[in-house]
Amino acid sequence: MSRATPSIPAATDDLLAHFASIVGAEHVITDPGLMASYLSEPRNLYHGRARSIVLPGSTAEVADIVTLCNAAGIKIVPQGGNTGLVGGQTPSEGGDEIVLSLTRMNRLREIDILSNTLTVEAGMTLKDVRAAAEAAGRYFPLALNAAPACTIGGNLATNAGGSAAIAFGVARDLVLGIEVVLADGRVLNDLSKLKKNNTGYDLKNLFIGSEGTLGVITAAVLKLFPKPHATVTALVGLADLDRALQLLSLAQDKVSAELKTFELLPRIAFDFVLKNDAAAVDPLPAPYPYYALLEFTSQGIGLAERVDELLDAARAREIIAEARTATAPASRKVLWHIRLKIPDVQVNEGGSIKHDISVPIAAVPAFLREVEAAVTARIPGARLVAFGHLGDGNIHCNVSQPVGADKATFLARWDEINALVHGIVAKYHGSISAEHGIGQMKRGLLPGVKDPVALDLMRTLKKTLDPKDILNPGKVV
Amino acid sequence: MSRATPSIPAATDDLLAHFASIVGAEHVITDPGLMASYLSEPRNLYHGRARSIVLPGSTAEVADIVTLCNAAGIKIVPQGGNTGLVGGQTPSEGGDEIVLSLTRMNRLREIDILSNTLTVEAGMTLKDVRAAAEAAGRYFPLALNAAPACTIGGNLATNAGGSAAIAFGVARDLVLGIEVVLADGRVLNDLSKLKKNNTGYDLKNLFIGSEGTLGVITAAVLKLFPKPHATVTALVGLADLDRALQLLSLAQDKVSAELKTFELLPRIAFDFVLKNDAAAVDPLPAPYPYYALLEFTSQGIGLAERVDELLDAARAREIIAEARTATAPASRKVLWHIRLKIPDVQVNEGGSIKHDISVPIAAVPAFLREVEAAVTARIPGARLVAFGHLGDGNIHCNVSQPVGADKATFLARWDEINALVHGIVAKYHGSISAEHGIGQMKRGLLPGVKDPVALDLMRTLKKTLDPKDILNPGKVV
Repeated sequence: MSRATPSIPAATDDLLAHFASIVGAEHVITDPGLMASYLSEPRNLYHGRARSIVLPGSTAEVADIVTLCNAAGIKIVPQGGNTGLVGGQTPSEGGDEIVLSLTRMNRLREIDILSNTLTVEAGMTLKDVRAAAEAAGRYFPLALNAAPACTIGGNLATNAGGSAAIAFGVARDLVLGIEVVLADGRVLNDLSKLKKNNTGYDLKNLFIGSEGTLGVITAAVLKLFPKPHATVTALVGLADLDRALQLLSLAQDKVSAELKTFELLPRIAFDFVLKNDAAAVDPLPAPYPYYALLEFTSQGIGLAERVDELLDAARAREIIAEARTATAPASRKVLWHIRLKIPDVQVNEGGSIKHDISVPIAAVPAFLREVEAAVTARIPGARLVAFGHLGDGNIHCNVSQPVGADKATFLARWDEINALVHGIVAKYHGSISAEHGIGQMKRGLLPGVKDPVALDLMRTLKKTLDPKDILNPGKVV
Repeated sequence: MSRATPSIPAATDDLLAHFASIVGAEHVITDPGLMASYLSEPRNLYHGRARSIVLPGSTAEVADIVTLCNAAGIKIVPQGGNTGLVGGQTPSEGGDEIVLSLTRMNRLREIDILSNTLTVEAGMTLKDVRAAAEAAGRYFPLALNAAPACTIGGNLATNAGGSAAIAFGVARDLVLGIEVVLADGRVLNDLSKLKKNNTGYDLKNLFIGSEGTLGVITAAVLKLFPKPHATVTALVGLADLDRALQLLSLAQDKVSAELKTFELLPRIAFDFVLKNDAAAVDPLPAPYPYYALLEFTSQGIGLAERVDELLDAARAREIIAEARTATAPASRKVLWHIRLKIPDVQVNEGGSIKHDISVPIAAVPAFLREVEAAVTARIPGARLVAFGHLGDGNIHCNVSQPVGADKATFLARWDEINALVHGIVAKYHGSISAEHGIGQMKRGLLPGVKDPVALDLMRTLKKTLDPKDILNPGKVV
């Protein structure tokens, strides 16, 4: 794809006129009121300023905008649904950047039922992607709370994880091909529908997970899966963390192909939700120190019986104390309710210092015990709310303030507690960002945790692919 | 990892002495008789010369060798089991290169049953990797004919595919972390056991599939899977290609989680094996134009019944004509025999012009019909032997010479027939190298088939990561 380089505008007014000539004046937003929602993320931890919000409607328009910005040295912050949790999608305070919102590019380009592929533009929401698969009798497994708002482009740029990753992998595992606008405005067309293609370097994975710092993903070919014919959800009560791991191991041995979710929940998460959400009920009659939420899907018959056999075996080995299963959507929703409400209600319990970490699965119990001991030694009464994707070793290891403590005083210790927890993560060879990415939030932490050769190689790649540093500056590297 | 740069040797003798000081004199091979097996690949299509064969015993030794070569401008051809099919692992005719054989680095570093990971050095054979998993009650799914000889390092360097890719993906999908010696001798330690780790760019996939041109893979963390409790193999007779695709679709709908292999075989492959292999018997009483070989594994009970249900449904819809299933290892072997023998016996039928291609799965029938028509129009009597991994759209689309034709005359048309077939591959948006890679064989073809921006980006990456072009020169890019 070869395009003439637009001339370099001298001032912002010229620049905005240029943008307008590419995407249409109505798609260049400069009104402060209309810009606001693009400049701050929902939790309001990160907010910045920008010259304008530019909303291209096609890959060619993205290419023209990036070409123009590269020539003029204008920095670009690519943005999808603006639901990221590490400040990767919001501009800096400087006000010199533009936000390039991909949300207008939300078309379904092609669905191929026999090849099981879906080709979509970057701005389609995850919810719409899943609905398009569903409408075609197929299944797209990426599952995030943010699905109604987050875009598939953002999911790929951040390599999103979610609760089905134990079975289907993370976002990068769900992609066959991508289309990317490079920093110099050229379009990389790697929109392959092929499951096997060994003609050279794997370029797509360089861009997936690079948080918009190496290129702007404009479209992708996604893998589709058969729509499950049966779903069984199970919520089980557990006496301790080790038993959670034993149950995971037993489930993988007995029903592995059907196991799609294995979430760990501590009792305190139940208490938080039951206290703060009037719609919540405790699905099990007695309380347990830990819970596991399992979900199984299958194409065949007999799934419920196989899950029952698994739970019987787990009971016989004294791994689980109590279990409740559900197959109907409404009953399954009851079992999921507490898991899904945790992020919402935590705010009612005061300040929460968050950690999106992972460790090797075998290390999870020892890791969590050590974190709890270290955190409560440092802040007596601090409450560890460690929940999430045990099947991937990915625990959202949040620390809620002591009851009655001052929120601001507690949150002022964010960096200190982060450092404490991340030190234990390092000891167990874990990751300080399992699924949310680096963004602005963890950029300063990378040198402390990353192999120095890896970090140097990342910087080299950034310099090679974006020599003028126009793509999402100040993020990741 | 920081090391002092060894001094630059003036002549080959000095160089060899340096190598010997690093790896030990007995691991620097210069005797022509002993070198021979490293210089030519088994099919003898590619052979070259080299200064020596160097066999390091550790990552540190690899790093020292590469550091030395980078400083001295000595080219390195990394080699595993020397089973590659595109000349990626053999040196050029020039004789200035060294072959760096990783075969001494064959240690199992760690197995973690709860985390389901296996950490191995690059030189371990695939067979030994699979055996190590098996011994630990786990399963490593990569399945290649070359398993007894090929090494896991070679499998990753070439991103090997094989017959279980429909369920488990290709080699890159089976890796959690890698260790790589870069062109400047630095060691990239990305030996992560984590399933989720979003701390920066995905470096490992840059090296996996780069055929040793961007770095030397010295170790890897592999994913392990539960050992299947039941296996069912089915061989079915099909009236035509479209029915093969219908059966694949039905199998994915009904038994998808258990479907591990879906191979397509044409009748001519049966004829070749039955004629040239005394041990072969036709498993089905009547001949069919096409066959599908399916394999299912499961952790649960009832697999045989579910496969029977699938086959009954396929019969009722007139998708399949006849089917035979087997569960015992010896009976399953009978069903696999013809599939596994095809590569061996093809040589008995004269010259064979080979194509390792893939197209979107939905396009396979139309593609194969068009190839057959085009090839036989060009060479009347040429026999298309198209077999392989239909579940991945990856067909080994080989063309055997007409009966009684002159072999040399036929093989002289290799490039012409390649171009003809690859033209049809392009029309269907396929790949000219689905699983064997580029190596020397297809390097010249890349510019004709690859997106020019992608190819340019590959060259940029090569220049960035290996500025002196010392790693596997003349391969891939």
